[in-house]
Amino acid sequence: MMMKSKTEYLTFNTATSHAFVNITPNVRKIVEESGIKEGLCLANAMHITASVFINDNESGLHQDFDKWLEELAPHAPAAQYKHNETGEDNADAHLKRQIMGREVIVAITNGKLDFGPWEQIFYGEFDGRRKKRVLVKVIGGGDE
Amino acid sequence: MMMKSKTEYLTFNTATSHAFVNITPNVRKIVEESGIKEGLCLANAMHITASVFINDNESGLHQDFDKWLEELAPHAPAAQYKHNETGEDNADAHLKRQIMGREVIVAITNGKLDFGPWEQIFYGEFDGRRKKRVLVKVIGGGDE
Amino acid sequence: MMMKSKTEYLTFNTATSHAFVNITPNVRKIVEESGIKEGLCLANAMHITASVFINDNESGLHQDFDKWLEELAPHAPAAQYKHNETGEDNADAHLKRQIMGREVIVAITNGKLDFGPWEQIFYGEFDGRRKKRVLVKVIGGGDE
Repeated sequence: MMMKSKTEYLTFNTATSHAFVNITPNVRKIVEESGIKEGLCLANAMHITASVFINDNESGLHQDFDKWLEELAPHAPAAQYKHNETGEDNADAHLKRQIMGREVIVAITNGKLDFGPWEQIFYGEFDGRRKKRVLVKVIGGGDE
Repeated sequence: MMMKSKTEYLTFNTATSHAFVNITPNVRKIVEESGIKEGLCLANAMHITASVFINDNESGLHQDFDKWLEELAPHAPAAQYKHNETGEDNADAHLKRQIMGREVIVAITNGKLDFGPWEQIFYGEFDGRRKKRVLVKVIGGGDE
Repeated sequence: MMMKSKTEYLTFNTATSHAFVNITPNVRKIVEESGIKEGLCLANAMHITASVFINDNESGLHQDFDKWLEELAPHAPAAQYKHNETGEDNADAHLKRQIMGREVIVAITNGKLDFGPWEQIFYGEFDGRRKKRVLVKVIGGGDE
């Protein structure tokens, strides 16, 4: 196989401080356009208060994630975190992102995302209302 | 180097709802069969209530993981989770999987998994007694 | 593109049991030396009580991480963990490493780490005062 790669950036500006956005269609399109048949697809948050993760496309579960993350790393009181002494109030978002992860790697097989039946890729925002980016990079081999 | 890849699927049906299965021998065999000398090996759960992770092959630690995950994301009462209103009772398994992770990437160097002294790869099941799969994909360069 | 790879190992022996070390300059140098223009860079802890993760280079946040991890997976009392019956006292370090993660994958674009504005790579030590290693592997395509 000849080695190929393709890199794209997705931009988000969520209306709420917390959000989960299904980016599977965006990533699928990039993989298809890459012409790569066998390879790996990296999708990562480029900001350190956001995540890219794979889980279920079910709104009740997303509410569960949000409640659970708030219990594990509460936003308030802001003064409980040293980081917030810098003038930020988003220390909790840095912690939440560690639980949910920065990135996923998905296999590409026969030119498609090689997914189990329920796998979907989400952008997880924990400090929104500002412009942020996700990097998608596909690397592997194609026919030409 | 010429680029090569190899993709295999492992199937699990654990007898218990929670289990940790050492899949290092399976992954090692796939890497050796691939003929890839320098590359990356992806191993990921294809189901969203299971994990693939790297840690110690020590049964006491596995009991510690199980108890700890139950404290961080308790199974009962089921009604504490919105996801379980869909008729599922596995919301906690979706949360536990985020702590333990979906996937690992292991370097392949000189045709071998490039591991530290204690690294072993585990399949982590949090909602078992059903058929589930792990994807293993090796990508890199070989001699031919 | 012709496929290339480069593998290096970083060694740490932290003076304290817990430490966060910024390894971005080390990883950047390895990527530059690799001559790889488009590819992926894996950086992983080779020990199972340590992490490699990407977050903010801000000392207050690092203190927040340390305090938070101690709340989620306390070191003491040692007897709360089965793993410590083996004669170890580092069960908590194995748990903390799961929260922070084993590895990161960073895209290489135009020969550079393709980072957002605040992304920095850290080695996270949870059971230090001994020699440990991080693996850095770059794989991708170059001009020659």
